Amino acid sequence: MSGQNNSSRIDEWLLKSIYRAAGQPAIRLRLRGGAEVSPKDALAVANIVIQDRKTLLRLLLDPEAEFGDAYSEGRIVLEGDLVCALEILYRSMPEAAHQGWYVKLVSECLEYVQRDSLRGSRRNIHQHYDLDTEFYRLWLDPQLVYTCAYFPSHGATLEQAQAAKLDYVCRKVQLQPGERVVDAGSGWGALALHMAKNYGVTVRAFNISREQVLVARRRAKELGLSHRVDFIEDDYRNISGECDAFVSVGMLEHVGREHYRDLGRVIDRSLAKTGRGLLHFIGRNHPRPFTTWTRRRIFPGAYAPALGEVMQIFEPWDLSVLDVENLRPHYAKTLEHWLARFEKCEQQISEMFSPEFMRAWRLYLAGAVAGFHVGTLQLFQIVFARTACQQIPWTRAHLYTDERHEEQETKWMHATS
Amino acid sequence: MSGQNNSSRIDEWLLKSIYRAAGQPAIRLRLRGGAEVSPKDALAVANIVIQDRKTLLRLLLDPEAEFGDAYSEGRIVLEGDLVCALEILYRSMPEAAHQGWYVKLVSECLEYVQRDSLRGSRRNIHQHYDLDTEFYRLWLDPQLVYTCAYFPSHGATLEQAQAAKLDYVCRKVQLQPGERVVDAGSGWGALALHMAKNYGVTVRAFNISREQVLVARRRAKELGLSHRVDFIEDDYRNISGECDAFVSVGMLEHVGREHYRDLGRVIDRSLAKTGRGLLHFIGRNHPRPFTTWTRRRIFPGAYAPALGEVMQIFEPWDLSVLDVENLRPHYAKTLEHWLARFEKCEQQISEMFSPEFMRAWRLYLAGAVAGFHVGTLQLFQIVFARTACQQIPWTRAHLYTDERHEEQETKWMHATS
Repeated sequence: MSGQNNSSRIDEWLLKSIYRAAGQPAIRLRLRGGAEVSPKDALAVANIVIQDRKTLLRLLLDPEAEFGDAYSEGRIVLEGDLVCALEILYRSMPEAAHQGWYVKLVSECLEYVQRDSLRGSRRNIHQHYDLDTEFYRLWLDPQLVYTCAYFPSHGATLEQAQAAKLDYVCRKVQLQPGERVVDAGSGWGALALHMAKNYGVTVRAFNISREQVLVARRRAKELGLSHRVDFIEDDYRNISGECDAFVSVGMLEHVGREHYRDLGRVIDRSLAKTGRGLLHFIGRNHPRPFTTWTRRRIFPGAYAPALGEVMQIFEPWDLSVLDVENLRPHYAKTLEHWLARFEKCEQQISEMFSPEFMRAWRLYLAGAVAGFHVGTLQLFQIVFARTACQQIPWTRAHLYTDERHEEQETKWMHATS
Repeated sequence: MSGQNNSSRIDEWLLKSIYRAAGQPAIRLRLRGGAEVSPKDALAVANIVIQDRKTLLRLLLDPEAEFGDAYSEGRIVLEGDLVCALEILYRSMPEAAHQGWYVKLVSECLEYVQRDSLRGSRRNIHQHYDLDTEFYRLWLDPQLVYTCAYFPSHGATLEQAQAAKLDYVCRKVQLQPGERVVDAGSGWGALALHMAKNYGVTVRAFNISREQVLVARRRAKELGLSHRVDFIEDDYRNISGECDAFVSVGMLEHVGREHYRDLGRVIDRSLAKTGRGLLHFIGRNHPRPFTTWTRRRIFPGAYAPALGEVMQIFEPWDLSVLDVENLRPHYAKTLEHWLARFEKCEQQISEMFSPEFMRAWRLYLAGAVAGFHVGTLQLFQIVFARTACQQIPWTRAHLYTDERHEEQETKWMHATS
């Protein structure tokens, strides 16, 4: 009896320690069949039920990594709305809680092991992007755009918003018929194909995900655009030749902070004297790595940079930053769409993958929704140009007037007909 | 005879050395009554006539500083269009030419002497901004806005463009009636008065130029806005109290790169939990000081930062950058207006100041036009916010539609009537 009492007192002490480390969120923590901690002055919005004592101990050592693994493996069960609970946790948890010596050590070892060398990048990208395309088809839009969409209005559908994003990028870099574009990190090819189809440009699109390149080439063929879009299975560091516009949507997160100068060098050597470009990427308010869980289970080698870090790409080469837009709320909305579709296809996905995979990806998607809502994650689009670039619009009004766009399309049609 | 030959050969060698250091521009260099160097493969767009050998020697040692002083003192005469000639020089001159050990030493000593401490800033600001307001009235717009204007269309007048800029800033930070605004570095008060008058906010406006503060207070009184706008003669480091929006237009150039964290600290301690703000400043593509001439004769203690440096203001305090716009072409146009008005008032200005002052200011204005044209100078507007800020617009379209603006004005009128 007294042994049981002692151990339940220890459980309670452990739970309280975890609860304090998490910043005392409006969430109830419970050890299955045992002790629990509840918020003092607030209603609990969700319950986190820890299934065993081992998990409890591990949570104390490395809360973020263990939460992810335990949730995926069913050793933690969350009762209530997952996104909502994660938002509360992100808001309450002081950043210092991720910064224990153990967590730091693991984090830095992982950064070394997953470093984005030529070979390392291939391995890292393979793990996420070479999953069966059929899986992504289940919950992405029909064009398979796996980056933040742009919702011109709240009512836009995901399909509309992804199409709008592709076009927004083209308008931001002011593509002109006949120009040569490099698309670095081209996914399943939607942006490159949109550019060639609607703006009369030729595109060389680089990607190290074999699976994605194969799908993209097939789509180019189907659309009769193979002569205008070249999907090349190669690393951005091997890009050669000249281009008028250098565009990269959703690749920078996989470049790694050690390699921003390399990417800048590639842009500088590729870009014509009057060239310009756009980078679109997940960023941060200040330098901070992804959790080790995210890097181990979801995005190996990934890093979302703060703007100060990103400037290493532009500053050594005298490139002018023309426009930076933070589309954070749009990524929260995009991810809400993905998560809802993902949940809808639970049955089909569970036939393809294990329950652990299913839960890990649910946590990743829900965590990203929460991160963009709360503001631990940002989404930046940066337009840049050579100082000699003449294609700098006088104001940004053209991005928001449909007439100008129609005019541009007409102009292009005249130029090629 | 042979002595004369030798000295003219030395002159020619000196001229050629200067010409090479300047990157062989399409400009003819001539020593008055003596040697000259002409571009080989191009027509000379202008002649630079050096009046004496001492100037020639000094140009070799510290080209930028000496060019400025010699031009001001009439020891260099420029035949041709000044802006055009400076553009050619800026384009041809490799940046390494500013980087000799002597130039670097002088530059760093000057940075120390003119450091922007509380007392140093007062002295630095006094030298430029406490000049007789009547002087600035001659060539600025009637509202005395001494920062980059925003020309919604090419045809806008300077008056219209300055009014549009004031409003653009207000719209970018989404001012709401009743909010509390801090305006750091408020000039002659145009922005603070515009905000109070058109957006129903209260403003505390800080400035260490006594002359400007006196003028601004008088204008507030004349407009019946003294109860809404408080012009305070004090340093940004002494700002206290809370605000909903923190705005600073054209002050950052005088903060000094050693003090960006100080400014960030002031913003962080001033800004309400849901606050946001805007910084508007002259910037660079990469870190690079103003010439020693500019800092000695025009803007003591000034520094135009690269975006990477500016991020020190936001990153330590978890502020989100929402929007960065580079308005470089607008500043070139603004400065063209100022320069043209300045030239028109030559007679009146020459009654107030010496010919050296007149020429120095002509060179400063023309040099700035050239810098913004060529791209050695940038003009950034950065909108930032706390992560908890709710006043983040869904898209930037509202900045470019008049209806929304009218709606906002109507809303404000309802709120206060």
